[in-house]
Amino acid sequence: MSLPTQPYKGARDFYPEDKRIQKYMFAKLRQVVESFGYQEYDAPLLEPFDIYAAKSGDELVNEQLYSFEDKGGRKVAIRPEMTPTVSRMVAARRQELAYPLRLYSIPNLWRYERPQHGRLREHWQLNVDLFGIEGLEGDAEIIQVADSILKAFGATPQMYEIRINSRNLLEKRVKAAGVKTSVGEAIRFVDKFEKLSKDEFRFKLGEVVEKPDELYGFLTEDGDSEETKNLKILLEKSGVTNVRSVYSLARGFDYYSDIVFEVFDTSPANNRSMFGGGRYDGLVGLFGAEPVPTVGFGMGDVTLQNFLVTHRLLPDLPAETDLVAILIGDVYAGAQAALANLRENGVNVAVDASDRKLDSKIKHAVKSGTRYALFIGETELSAGRFKLRDLTKGQEDELSAKEIINKFTKHP
Amino acid sequence: MSLPTQPYKGARDFYPEDKRIQKYMFAKLRQVVESFGYQEYDAPLLEPFDIYAAKSGDELVNEQLYSFEDKGGRKVAIRPEMTPTVSRMVAARRQELAYPLRLYSIPNLWRYERPQHGRLREHWQLNVDLFGIEGLEGDAEIIQVADSILKAFGATPQMYEIRINSRNLLEKRVKAAGVKTSVGEAIRFVDKFEKLSKDEFRFKLGEVVEKPDELYGFLTEDGDSEETKNLKILLEKSGVTNVRSVYSLARGFDYYSDIVFEVFDTSPANNRSMFGGGRYDGLVGLFGAEPVPTVGFGMGDVTLQNFLVTHRLLPDLPAETDLVAILIGDVYAGAQAALANLRENGVNVAVDASDRKLDSKIKHAVKSGTRYALFIGETELSAGRFKLRDLTKGQEDELSAKEIINKFTKHP
Repeated sequence: MSLPTQPYKGARDFYPEDKRIQKYMFAKLRQVVESFGYQEYDAPLLEPFDIYAAKSGDELVNEQLYSFEDKGGRKVAIRPEMTPTVSRMVAARRQELAYPLRLYSIPNLWRYERPQHGRLREHWQLNVDLFGIEGLEGDAEIIQVADSILKAFGATPQMYEIRINSRNLLEKRVKAAGVKTSVGEAIRFVDKFEKLSKDEFRFKLGEVVEKPDELYGFLTEDGDSEETKNLKILLEKSGVTNVRSVYSLARGFDYYSDIVFEVFDTSPANNRSMFGGGRYDGLVGLFGAEPVPTVGFGMGDVTLQNFLVTHRLLPDLPAETDLVAILIGDVYAGAQAALANLRENGVNVAVDASDRKLDSKIKHAVKSGTRYALFIGETELSAGRFKLRDLTKGQEDELSAKEIINKFTKHP
Repeated sequence: MSLPTQPYKGARDFYPEDKRIQKYMFAKLRQVVESFGYQEYDAPLLEPFDIYAAKSGDELVNEQLYSFEDKGGRKVAIRPEMTPTVSRMVAARRQELAYPLRLYSIPNLWRYERPQHGRLREHWQLNVDLFGIEGLEGDAEIIQVADSILKAFGATPQMYEIRINSRNLLEKRVKAAGVKTSVGEAIRFVDKFEKLSKDEFRFKLGEVVEKPDELYGFLTEDGDSEETKNLKILLEKSGVTNVRSVYSLARGFDYYSDIVFEVFDTSPANNRSMFGGGRYDGLVGLFGAEPVPTVGFGMGDVTLQNFLVTHRLLPDLPAETDLVAILIGDVYAGAQAALANLRENGVNVAVDASDRKLDSKIKHAVKSGTRYALFIGETELSAGRFKLRDLTKGQEDELSAKEIINKFTKHP
């Protein structure tokens, strides 16, 4: 009986053509966030179960967490999000670290859920966090970074909308409407405002607050609070203009403490929240350290890739391998210096040293998807000039090693 | 009660200064293996438990595997090694893929074991695999790649030794000595030849084979088999010279089918196997596909870093952030164009837009470890020239934006 070849449900195998897309996306993410002074960190995939139980929200902990006991009897979880981890790390060095502290990471995250469009069990998520800035310029910077990322991929402001809200204000209004169960539950329900039908929302709102009509009236207003107004002004100054205030916006996690934001894909094909974040000033304090004002966001690779595909923003990505060097005759030893020279100068060379016929070697090079073939025999080695064949166009040039190197030099 | 701030036992937090080292190592690994025509792949962290049960070896499966049941009742494992995964992926597309197929990955791997020098529960491991070459030139290429990696980090052949063996030959000799329990167990014991004392080894050898003296005699020979002799010739042609044949070398995994190799750190401080690999022709076949000749190796980040540190091969790595831009006065809006210009041209700029005093801002910039501070006020913006202070040397220059960009351009 043979083993199955599919990947685990809700997770992906990345063959080189898939991995190239991810590498392209991650390189651009790194480039943009580093340009804003953020530095990369990382942490273990496994964390103590308790750090999620504390603040992440019930649905995530009870239903979506991959948790188990390790062989030493510790209750651990595969991280479903990075925010508790980065808070733990900042708490561990609360005094030594310099603020404002700008950190980012692209962790691998897991959630047990029914796989669907844009949501898988395994994904990667850019996490960008700014520690130590209490004022709105912190929130503005984080939103500016998110906006700059999309623009760096070639997105125009028409392709997405940035929605902001003050969770503080929302909490006040929810409390004023008379909470029936808990504030947290009421707020998580309010977050469904845009997803449910009007009627269904109004009906169910009555189950979580005493005065649903009053709260509903507030949620349908299209105004700005003092805070979101000021945030918009800061964002406009830094060139971020497609911002809208949405009173019902809450975000799922319990730990958000004030401004929250979400970036919506405006294309009819997706038309949904792509990613978001907000202020979570209290989380570092959970680890026994003095709290630190914090604002951040997370952006998943699956939704980002969907966005780029929908808006045709993914370029054609060339293979890592520049050429297949086809050895002709007994030149294995003689060719090594030439190959090393190419490789050390940045040309990526796969060698075909097999004793297949030349025709068969070329056929295999074509099948491999490599664009060029380079022929190396006795004659070429003694002359120092090599035939380079473009396998797509069939065109052939005779080049020196130096000319080959120049042709394939990657410009940054 | 507050949550603990330590990372999970046997795993590491990577603060930016730690992550930089890993990024440096991984970038060089990618550069070298891609220069040999290898392309990156990736796969899910979780795999079905069964793919390890099949061939990885008992110790790993019974004692070291992080395995559990998911919420749907599937028995899964966090991958402890990448070889079964890449074999699964090749099997899934056995017919479509072009051979020779060159693949690499740097997966995150987990093993439950007592953390010790050079061995942690979580590590990353470069995996390089070559599919479709039956002959020794495949084994030679893989060893050449491993050797080129160490040289690319600046290692000299005196710092390490490459040990090779034919597991085929070893198996024949073990069988000829009369196996008492199983061939696998006997071979795993033989692998301890260099770790145990002579007396202990000879004594215990009698527990696994009928004729221990005969086998012991063979193991102490310092000769070459036909195969290792030919492999050495190929390696010498490609400039790999520090190679030694070791008859007792076996490698832990059950799936190796012929040539195995290990790279030893020769420094007295480490003096042990750093990493290795070999031929495992049978693994793809376990997934119901036609078997394919395969040779590969894995190189862990922990041992690699130890090697680089011991031999003083780690360079000083600058922080990702080039400078802190200190805003003076009310220039938040006015400074945005200048900042965007720097960032889009590859300068990594953290902004201090706080209303702290100038002295305090400078102090924080110094504490953050960023090398330079750039002062931006009304005067600077209208003149188009900015003071750039080297915070290490205290030296200050007045530069245009273009001059700043030139100064910080990263050359590849």
